[in-house]
Amino acid sequence: MKRERKGDIWDFEHEIPATSGGGEKLILGLDGGTSNTICVCMPVIPFTSNHSPPVYARAVAGCSNHNSVGETAARETLEQVMAEALLKSGCSRSAVRAVCLAVSGVNHPTDQQRILDWLSDIFTSDVEFFVENDAVAALASGTMGKLHGCVLIAGTGTIAYGYTEDGREARASGAGPVLGDWGSGYGIAAKALTSVIRSYDGRGPETMLTCSVLHQLQLSSPDELIGWTYADPSWARIANLVPVVVSCAEAGDQVANDILLHAVQELASSVKAVVHRLGLCGKDGKASFPLVMVGNVLEANRRWDIGKEVIDCIAKDFPGMRPVRPRVEPAVGAALLAWNYVIEQYQQEHPVVDYD
Amino acid sequence: MKRERKGDIWDFEHEIPATSGGGEKLILGLDGGTSNTICVCMPVIPFTSNHSPPVYARAVAGCSNHNSVGETAARETLEQVMAEALLKSGCSRSAVRAVCLAVSGVNHPTDQQRILDWLSDIFTSDVEFFVENDAVAALASGTMGKLHGCVLIAGTGTIAYGYTEDGREARASGAGPVLGDWGSGYGIAAKALTSVIRSYDGRGPETMLTCSVLHQLQLSSPDELIGWTYADPSWARIANLVPVVVSCAEAGDQVANDILLHAVQELASSVKAVVHRLGLCGKDGKASFPLVMVGNVLEANRRWDIGKEVIDCIAKDFPGMRPVRPRVEPAVGAALLAWNYVIEQYQQEHPVVDYD
Repeated sequence: MKRERKGDIWDFEHEIPATSGGGEKLILGLDGGTSNTICVCMPVIPFTSNHSPPVYARAVAGCSNHNSVGETAARETLEQVMAEALLKSGCSRSAVRAVCLAVSGVNHPTDQQRILDWLSDIFTSDVEFFVENDAVAALASGTMGKLHGCVLIAGTGTIAYGYTEDGREARASGAGPVLGDWGSGYGIAAKALTSVIRSYDGRGPETMLTCSVLHQLQLSSPDELIGWTYADPSWARIANLVPVVVSCAEAGDQVANDILLHAVQELASSVKAVVHRLGLCGKDGKASFPLVMVGNVLEANRRWDIGKEVIDCIAKDFPGMRPVRPRVEPAVGAALLAWNYVIEQYQQEHPVVDYD
Repeated sequence: MKRERKGDIWDFEHEIPATSGGGEKLILGLDGGTSNTICVCMPVIPFTSNHSPPVYARAVAGCSNHNSVGETAARETLEQVMAEALLKSGCSRSAVRAVCLAVSGVNHPTDQQRILDWLSDIFTSDVEFFVENDAVAALASGTMGKLHGCVLIAGTGTIAYGYTEDGREARASGAGPVLGDWGSGYGIAAKALTSVIRSYDGRGPETMLTCSVLHQLQLSSPDELIGWTYADPSWARIANLVPVVVSCAEAGDQVANDILLHAVQELASSVKAVVHRLGLCGKDGKASFPLVMVGNVLEANRRWDIGKEVIDCIAKDFPGMRPVRPRVEPAVGAALLAWNYVIEQYQQEHPVVDYD
């Protein structure tokens, strides 16, 4: 398939003949974030939950959030990463049975429809499409593709997203730093920087953060933090200071400790809001549901374990919450979402299936 | 005087002959902020404190903060606004006895020296120069040019600046929104927007702010606030929502009320930090000092009066604090600073002076 773009003819894929597998069908799972986009190819074959999902190929490209790079560039990135994954898997586009595209910036039905429209241009009409926000891929990565429960993502930003088995969904946070995502990596680090300034100008207590943050940034005075902060508007650059805050808290610094405790409350409150709105905890508040934890702020690699504290805080209100740390990446989660749908359809068409 | 710039010859001033006043001497006072720069011309003549300072001419130009527009543009703006003020006053450059330049972005001795160097290029060696941060002009506008006491500025941003009679100075806040200027107009409005989002996603209580903010911005759902917020990075655009917050607090909304109470605590804490560090309150904590209040957040034009609450909060700790609302603009404050110095010098040279 060749498509005209910017005056050039661009190959959607190298035209590869049908693979030796003959009728083998594929699923494409995409996770599109603000830093990169990942696409995986998965075969439509059954596997047991004890095994990792089979992945034939994986391709990586840049940002595909249309709010960040514009619609044309976002679409090109998505097409390119799908073409590359198919090429690597040695299969042709005609082998694709379903595509699950989970991209950040997809928040409204209009965003979904736009992507669905151009997917229809690329694939034949019998291909199933799923277009979702990237939080959905993160949830699915912890539930092996099943859309039920809540996911909490905390990296540079933070968001809580939840789904019920009957298809209702809700979110909390994810509105960016101006609009109060205080549990995010950016929020934690911005509070730490603020504490250094407050200590320096006499509004706040002394803190180990002053020495640690200045050392990390190779600055000589808190004065210089102002220039450093506004020299580059990237949120991720500020969020990189989270490990410094954790180290200070581990070393017994009260200010750093309070910042992390506040972040824990904020993250837990996002999850609680979603669980309440969807009634995931059931009428008695004790129903079981998975809470998928994603993002480096929640990674359990430190003595001061933010993720564990968040879980403890939520468990007090919802004893049926089952924390899950995903074993696969979000792109595989997206593929599993489509895989579940396709397998279910197959089971309906072939009522007796021997999975072993 | 003609100066070469960008290949053109540029007039620093139209060459006007000495005025009819003959030997009359002038002072230039400049207040350079991030939105505009104002220059006033004041004669070196005595006047009593019951009268307004005499101002011969006033000129307005754009931003002269070198951090915002670069050094060359900042310098051109400052030269241009001085030339225009002199032209309007009908006086020549040779009449200038002193210049006080108070510009935002002047934070370090290196910033001061750079400006002093090019002022020396323009004026003769007997002209006195004062180069300060723009907070100094605001302080001087409330103390009739005397550098003593504290100034609290709260508009889009906020800063507290203080001076002792023996020349020590200190500041608090003024580090911008990322670094916790929560008492600023931006800080108040960002908290209000956050409260709308928190209420909408279930993390916070219901608030009248939702309806009022959406109405003000002509949006139909809190969802749309995310797009609105990040569509334009201007802090002033967000700070414009302060009157909406005040209206909701006046109408009895608890969330809006709490936001304003928090801002009051933050603003008071900046002033208290400066007063403590400089010892403006004396050893017994009761010494008298002026607190100059500047900026639209502190203007006493509403029933919920942020400025009055700040004053009440500070007065509890420092009963000798005398709140001052300036009767002249900061550019006149800058001129008065230089005027005080010149008059003092004159008095020293002419010990007996009859001011009436």
